Amino acid sequence: MLENLKERVCSANLELFHRGIVIYTWGNVSAIDRQTGLVVIKPSGIGYDSMTPEDMVVVSLETGEVVEGKWRPSSDTPTHIELYRAFKEIGGITHSHSINAVAFAQAARPIPALGTTHADYFYGDIPCTRGLAQEEIETAYEKNTGKVIVETLSEIKNALEIPGILVKNHGPFSWGASAEEAIYHAVVMEAVAEMALKTLQLNPSASMDQFILDKHYFRKHGEHSYYGQR
Amino acid sequence: MLENLKERVCSANLELFHRGIVIYTWGNVSAIDRQTGLVVIKPSGIGYDSMTPEDMVVVSLETGEVVEGKWRPSSDTPTHIELYRAFKEIGGITHSHSINAVAFAQAARPIPALGTTHADYFYGDIPCTRGLAQEEIETAYEKNTGKVIVETLSEIKNALEIPGILVKNHGPFSWGASAEEAIYHAVVMEAVAEMALKTLQLNPSASMDQFILDKHYFRKHGEHSYYGQR
Amino acid sequence: MLENLKERVCSANLELFHRGIVIYTWGNVSAIDRQTGLVVIKPSGIGYDSMTPEDMVVVSLETGEVVEGKWRPSSDTPTHIELYRAFKEIGGITHSHSINAVAFAQAARPIPALGTTHADYFYGDIPCTRGLAQEEIETAYEKNTGKVIVETLSEIKNALEIPGILVKNHGPFSWGASAEEAIYHAVVMEAVAEMALKTLQLNPSASMDQFILDKHYFRKHGEHSYYGQR
Amino acid sequence: MLENLKERVCSANLELFHRGIVIYTWGNVSAIDRQTGLVVIKPSGIGYDSMTPEDMVVVSLETGEVVEGKWRPSSDTPTHIELYRAFKEIGGITHSHSINAVAFAQAARPIPALGTTHADYFYGDIPCTRGLAQEEIETAYEKNTGKVIVETLSEIKNALEIPGILVKNHGPFSWGASAEEAIYHAVVMEAVAEMALKTLQLNPSASMDQFILDKHYFRKHGEHSYYGQR
Repeated sequence: MLENLKERVCSANLELFHRGIVIYTWGNVSAIDRQTGLVVIKPSGIGYDSMTPEDMVVVSLETGEVVEGKWRPSSDTPTHIELYRAFKEIGGITHSHSINAVAFAQAARPIPALGTTHADYFYGDIPCTRGLAQEEIETAYEKNTGKVIVETLSEIKNALEIPGILVKNHGPFSWGASAEEAIYHAVVMEAVAEMALKTLQLNPSASMDQFILDKHYFRKHGEHSYYGQR
Repeated sequence: MLENLKERVCSANLELFHRGIVIYTWGNVSAIDRQTGLVVIKPSGIGYDSMTPEDMVVVSLETGEVVEGKWRPSSDTPTHIELYRAFKEIGGITHSHSINAVAFAQAARPIPALGTTHADYFYGDIPCTRGLAQEEIETAYEKNTGKVIVETLSEIKNALEIPGILVKNHGPFSWGASAEEAIYHAVVMEAVAEMALKTLQLNPSASMDQFILDKHYFRKHGEHSYYGQR
Repeated sequence: MLENLKERVCSANLELFHRGIVIYTWGNVSAIDRQTGLVVIKPSGIGYDSMTPEDMVVVSLETGEVVEGKWRPSSDTPTHIELYRAFKEIGGITHSHSINAVAFAQAARPIPALGTTHADYFYGDIPCTRGLAQEEIETAYEKNTGKVIVETLSEIKNALEIPGILVKNHGPFSWGASAEEAIYHAVVMEAVAEMALKTLQLNPSASMDQFILDKHYFRKHGEHSYYGQR
Repeated sequence: MLENLKERVCSANLELFHRGIVIYTWGNVSAIDRQTGLVVIKPSGIGYDSMTPEDMVVVSLETGEVVEGKWRPSSDTPTHIELYRAFKEIGGITHSHSINAVAFAQAARPIPALGTTHADYFYGDIPCTRGLAQEEIETAYEKNTGKVIVETLSEIKNALEIPGILVKNHGPFSWGASAEEAIYHAVVMEAVAEMALKTLQLNPSASMDQFILDKHYFRKHGEHSYYGQR
């Protein structure tokens, strides 16, 4: 079932490791097959050393239940499910504990859009969610993590315009049209978080004009883009 | 004698090196065999390049004396011995001079619990000991280092709930049910120390609610845990 | 056409990647053949993994149009062209998003000349351009990026004396007599940016006397240089 | 002539590179043969990629002139010579531009002794020289760099007790009984500089008691040492 997608999700999880974004089991990648409504995700707590496509777990978008797989799915699966339900445009999701992005999440600060590296991928600040209330944490914690992400992005029309977020006291989630794009955005988030941290050390009131953000974002995205090859 | 444990302790010392936590001889790992009351530990001042299981030293928990081995044991052996005596639940200990954890130890500050990466492994702040008095340093220094760690953790029922500590002006010690777990916690401490340092730069009053700490710690530990595989 | 220069430019782009200065497609290198007035540059948005000399694009200095190549040239090509037109002494240009240099660019601060590492290559602070006006960004953005660099350097006689600059909210550009030198200066800029950032954290009013700058710069450059081999 | 020492000095220069302490040609190592009064040193401005023992240059301690070698010696040779003349106990010298040590040198601050990692190798703060006067820089700069190091250490009986120093606005020099020890101390300086920088960010008034410094230094050095193997 979905052998090709399992291979891609497995490779994507390994790439997360090789890019230096995660150590041990501190991250996970999933992808969705919109036609069948099935999500392929990393198993929970399994190391990257010996992971193979057969270890991936298949979960139903509708019920959230495991459909196939010998392992339990990532404990963050209900978060992924909420995001796939809310944002039809996304095809892959990544969660990590990359150090600089976590620092912003722990500081309860968005990653501000301060330069073109950021603007090339994120159309505005990368927001940080509010903290979950005690009740939200004690009951259906992972599902509520998804809900607070959706709540934070409620004014955004297309989740691909801000393909990442920080969950307060936790860390980054990112997404994209595919698992590969979700990882790409996880790596970019970590880089722009480090850039922003250092920028704020040099100039606490650093900022970027909206028209630079517009220029760089739309140079790469949308019908008037001209970056890359046709 | 204890050939299998020597192999594991040797591998554990090498892993400390390969994970980038130590350079030169700046760290050591030990493990205890509770049945025989024997501790296997790295020799003192020996580089990681050519270390083999035969270089490990076997020490008696009761007397602290060398029972087998061609080298002197790590100069920190009396510290390890104190910890094994005080905490029956631990099976392995690691000491390192990893940079971010040392920075907190030198600053005489605990590593505060600011996020879920920390909460997944440490049930609260990672404390920093008081400084040793001159007399404690001049007489039985390494043993007193162990005593001040035990003193600092005196209100904790199970040392595995806070499997690491900072010794003021010195650096981190960590432990676990095994040598492998002790190293795992050394690597986690270094990562959460870097995260905390950067978080405090972004928000000096960052904090985390107790119920998030509870949720994440008990999601992975204890009878109601549901992280990972059964 | 210019096969040898294509090989060198391709190697230079790959070196940028291997030196850890760029990830993904976040950088580009070009070189000019002054005799024919042709610029060889990296294609736009192509990864470094499989790049070969045949992928390089040849552009006319005079018209800015593609003369040869199967891909579109880097979207930054008009910036490179402006620099080659203004500074006859330069033979290669590099653009990157290296983290510490970007931090200064985002903070709108020059990289101050604080030590001999800097003075060995840059005869003074590495300036940061003013921000582009909205009109300059919306019309011919990349060309205007080149113009603001030239404007910022307007009082410098020889662009090789300050072989790099920061574009506000964007990042570093560097150059040299060749593509190889341009990259060399990109790597140096990133190193001296990191040194300067940390120096300012330790001493916000750090500075260097002009006579040290003179000594180190002219020890390596000009007719009285004596560093290296004859 | 001195083939064995040339091999060791060449290896030492390469080690400096492999330890990540230098890039390009930003460092040099030398060693002295006290019997013949000859110093073996890296050639000036030669990359580490293809360096062999035959590239090393032999210089006379007495005259400072080249005795053998196909290249010019490092431009820092007169600094090395001054140190070998002043400190009979040292056998090897290293100079680098390692980032954290340079940050302290540019900030004109000593690296304070804040913990046991530092105390294991340096018996006190690692000092920073005064800045050289204009005349000292314009005439015999490299020799005067050596003189200001000697001046700064004038109250120390044995240069091996503080085997390193920062030259203001420049960077670290270190030494030891041999070239290998000099490099070892260069690597330690860089590590303790990073630790100290981060410690000061967490606690600007961090300090260490003299009796801890004594304990750790003399645990490894002198007649009462007991660290390592006999």
